[in-house]
Amino acid sequence: MNKKTLGSKSLLYPMPVTIVGADVDGKPNFLTIAFIGIINANPGMVAFGSNRKHYTNKGILANRTFSINVPSQDQLEITDYVGLYSGANVDKSRLFEVFYGKLGNAPMIETCPLNLECRVTDTLDRGGIDTIIVGEIIESYCEEKFLTGGNPDVEKMKPAVFSMYDNRYFAIGKYLGKAWSIGKKFRPKNIT
Amino acid sequence: MNKKTLGSKSLLYPMPVTIVGADVDGKPNFLTIAFIGIINANPGMVAFGSNRKHYTNKGILANRTFSINVPSQDQLEITDYVGLYSGANVDKSRLFEVFYGKLGNAPMIETCPLNLECRVTDTLDRGGIDTIIVGEIIESYCEEKFLTGGNPDVEKMKPAVFSMYDNRYFAIGKYLGKAWSIGKKFRPKNIT
Repeated sequence: MNKKTLGSKSLLYPMPVTIVGADVDGKPNFLTIAFIGIINANPGMVAFGSNRKHYTNKGILANRTFSINVPSQDQLEITDYVGLYSGANVDKSRLFEVFYGKLGNAPMIETCPLNLECRVTDTLDRGGIDTIIVGEIIESYCEEKFLTGGNPDVEKMKPAVFSMYDNRYFAIGKYLGKAWSIGKKFRPKNIT
Repeated sequence: MNKKTLGSKSLLYPMPVTIVGADVDGKPNFLTIAFIGIINANPGMVAFGSNRKHYTNKGILANRTFSINVPSQDQLEITDYVGLYSGANVDKSRLFEVFYGKLGNAPMIETCPLNLECRVTDTLDRGGIDTIIVGEIIESYCEEKFLTGGNPDVEKMKPAVFSMYDNRYFAIGKYLGKAWSIGKKFRPKNIT
């Protein structure tokens, strides 16, 4: 084997680029999160890690609600900005046109192509630098112009991806194939 | 507001494309997972959802170990294949050159550019179709040829991304900018 060991690092490629929102002391606040993934279907559930010092955590833990907003690559500079400066020092409540949904206190960003409105189901502390927040997606919101056949279309939404440690953002590239399909060529003859 | 509601769906764009590995009854087995994300730094931690009927879960829950393997886009057809057919019906133990690391029973795929060796810390069942598995990344493995400045380089590894519901795989596209940097232009004048 010709592999180098890199240690216990947060290596997963690529990561999505999201803006997590919460009301903190009654005002919307937002921060950039890439340590995030879907972890369950029916109901849709999500987990993410947020440094326990983050200002937004205070609102998430108080309200037990949060939003996940998927920005388009056109919104990448402002997305980067909300990850650079804490709501403790900078008022981020007027950066975006905000709307609220079923939960009433999970602020969502109107201009982001996709919004997930979430209720906290679990929080975990496993000794790292992040509070691990697990949530159920109560509702999701997307403009018609970003949908194809009723589903969000990455070629229309143009979300970005993040590469950890070298801290680079990338676009989505070319179409490579259909899932649950292109692997069928390897199917053993005795399996239908 | 001009948004449509799409319900409690597993909508996050894009998702990574990974192959999760575990020894089941002493033999390596693999399945494709996109419901996955990093959720903690120092230690690196990951969470993913795997349908509770999946054959691989048996091994993960018995051994309390698993691997995450990030395939390159050249390996996408075989990656799709391991997600199509269950290890209960198809022997996937000889599909890949396998190596083991510190934990001894988390099989990793030699030809995948990046491998994460993980120990289960938590499992959650929140009433959905998946078992939610939370793990600590004990070690990570990458060939020198995929590194730049000591970090995995997506332009060398060429991982794929997944788009849910329309079931499409995409490549990583063009470089868009530097994280923790391109947002500085919005910095208020009174903040250093």
